[in-house]
Amino acid sequence: MTMSWLKMKAEEAEYVDGGALHALISRSFQQLGLPPEDADFSADVLVQADLRGVDSHGVQNSVPNIYVPQLRAGKINVRPTVTVVHETPSTATVDGDNGMGMVVGRYGMELAMRKAREVGCGFVSVRNSNHYGMAGYYAMMALPHDMVGMSTTTARAGVVPLGGREPRLGTNPIAVAAPTFEEIPFVFDVATSTVAAQKVAIASISGRQLPDGWIADRDGRPSNDPKLPRDQRVLLPLGGGTREGGGHKGYGLAVIVDIFSGMLSGAGWSMDVEGFNCGHFFGAWRVDAFRPADEFKRDMDRMIRELHDTPTAVGFDRVYVAGELDHEMEQERRAHGIPIHKDVVAYLRKLAGELGFEPGL
Amino acid sequence: MTMSWLKMKAEEAEYVDGGALHALISRSFQQLGLPPEDADFSADVLVQADLRGVDSHGVQNSVPNIYVPQLRAGKINVRPTVTVVHETPSTATVDGDNGMGMVVGRYGMELAMRKAREVGCGFVSVRNSNHYGMAGYYAMMALPHDMVGMSTTTARAGVVPLGGREPRLGTNPIAVAAPTFEEIPFVFDVATSTVAAQKVAIASISGRQLPDGWIADRDGRPSNDPKLPRDQRVLLPLGGGTREGGGHKGYGLAVIVDIFSGMLSGAGWSMDVEGFNCGHFFGAWRVDAFRPADEFKRDMDRMIRELHDTPTAVGFDRVYVAGELDHEMEQERRAHGIPIHKDVVAYLRKLAGELGFEPGL
Repeated sequence: MTMSWLKMKAEEAEYVDGGALHALISRSFQQLGLPPEDADFSADVLVQADLRGVDSHGVQNSVPNIYVPQLRAGKINVRPTVTVVHETPSTATVDGDNGMGMVVGRYGMELAMRKAREVGCGFVSVRNSNHYGMAGYYAMMALPHDMVGMSTTTARAGVVPLGGREPRLGTNPIAVAAPTFEEIPFVFDVATSTVAAQKVAIASISGRQLPDGWIADRDGRPSNDPKLPRDQRVLLPLGGGTREGGGHKGYGLAVIVDIFSGMLSGAGWSMDVEGFNCGHFFGAWRVDAFRPADEFKRDMDRMIRELHDTPTAVGFDRVYVAGELDHEMEQERRAHGIPIHKDVVAYLRKLAGELGFEPGL
Repeated sequence: MTMSWLKMKAEEAEYVDGGALHALISRSFQQLGLPPEDADFSADVLVQADLRGVDSHGVQNSVPNIYVPQLRAGKINVRPTVTVVHETPSTATVDGDNGMGMVVGRYGMELAMRKAREVGCGFVSVRNSNHYGMAGYYAMMALPHDMVGMSTTTARAGVVPLGGREPRLGTNPIAVAAPTFEEIPFVFDVATSTVAAQKVAIASISGRQLPDGWIADRDGRPSNDPKLPRDQRVLLPLGGGTREGGGHKGYGLAVIVDIFSGMLSGAGWSMDVEGFNCGHFFGAWRVDAFRPADEFKRDMDRMIRELHDTPTAVGFDRVYVAGELDHEMEQERRAHGIPIHKDVVAYLRKLAGELGFEPGL
């Protein structure tokens, strides 16, 4: 599928209703073999990413480029028997039986939360799963239960370790979510590289110099060249290509993600990811395992308000807290629709036709 | 106490034996009221930082500038009654009774590990403690027990949130340690700012331009000016002062540290730190709560070797894994002594004299 959505111009966007998009994706996944409940949930993870503006993990990138080809090629087990390989009262290791990442992910996060309900906190490391969409979705599952949630996942290597010139680590995201009382919940969901590969692709189209710290050339030299072809550039860890800029920090965080998601589960690290088969990690801390949830949430509100009240730096008109921009985007897109490139809309309509149902958009 | 050690020249260094330094610090702490066991442990945390090259958290900065003045002024409770305020099988909230940070820290980490032994993992959030030295020490306590350890701590605000021009967050470190079989254990211990304040102080002395992403001026403009006085500059989060560079990532990580160490415990966040009274967080996952520890450790070795084998970038001759540089430094300093500025050595000798014992160095 074309990546033309990356450079979508205003006149190329169609505004699609989130509910209609969800229905189309769920139905497609069902026609491709997923049970209805699993298809619904998988679609929800993807459409939630679109609504929140995490376009790289939403429908228009992931469906044509990952899930549909993988499902059509029989590379994902649509009826997995997800099993607990080993467990203690607060931990578990899960084998995803090569299932759809979202389905295995829900299993892992729900198990972590069940253990948190029972003994205070719960952690689940998962192997033999697949690309699970936006990491933040799973961390956010903890919010309605007054838990702090986290999730990480290994990903195919595209990022160099500090001092290296070949990729050894995935963009290995870390997501942490914490509940609030009146303020928008704290939702942190970031790659441990400075930026995701697709941001480089998008920025390169403009032809302007890339910001420092995004990429290096194939000799490992930090570069700002937007014209370097994709196979001639590598991503840099958060902090960039030097120790003084903190590149060892982003690099170390990526290794931690591999330890949690890959070493504890036995999935292996980023270099062991085959296709989209990878490992995840899910955690949940019940807030009232530490202190009354209401007190915690009021303190969260107070912290967030004090952050909002920070006098702004030149060039900024607001101090945001993690999760707020995504929340604003979600309000906007729920009201006015999700902008999807017309080529992707055409692809989805054609997909529905091939699978034998009315697209409904 | 002078900060002259920051600009120590070779001829100003005295090489001090780690054991002799430990004895002097422990004896000093005892004379200042700490029970022998607590004094010994506190000295160990500090000297371990010196040995590993984490000079900002070792004796020469912390003893003259934090612990001795605080103890002499009666601001630290030398005989605290550390209590568990609330607990579940896998979690606890601890009140440190304004004790010495290392003493409270040991209590917190040992409790987390006890819970991990009992139910798989353990997490302890601590309030009413004090500056606890190097975060990595507590994470490393997990290693001999075949556990993955973590620790975070709030710290007095010195770092701006992305988009702000006044400090709201501490340097809020994150430490994670994981055991290996033959390779050096993985030990990640970093501030969530691009660099610690003291690195700015050290670099400023040279008069050369500071690297990008370290500081902003009081208007919040990113700056490279080494001549900005300390009260005219603020630290930037990891990723620097722009969203495109990833400044929201370091900022979000600092907030996560405040949530873990301050919001869960009730200590409050960075803005609530008074003097050195702050909150900590300790975590331990038993490796064999997920898979056999030997398998995990052999996989860790393999990952580390594959990282070492990464072809190097121009300007680098090795790819290091977190913890290796510190380990090398420790071998070096155990063999040849710890370089301490002669002014600090004189201070320590004088301190011993005032406290009525022979300095032994």
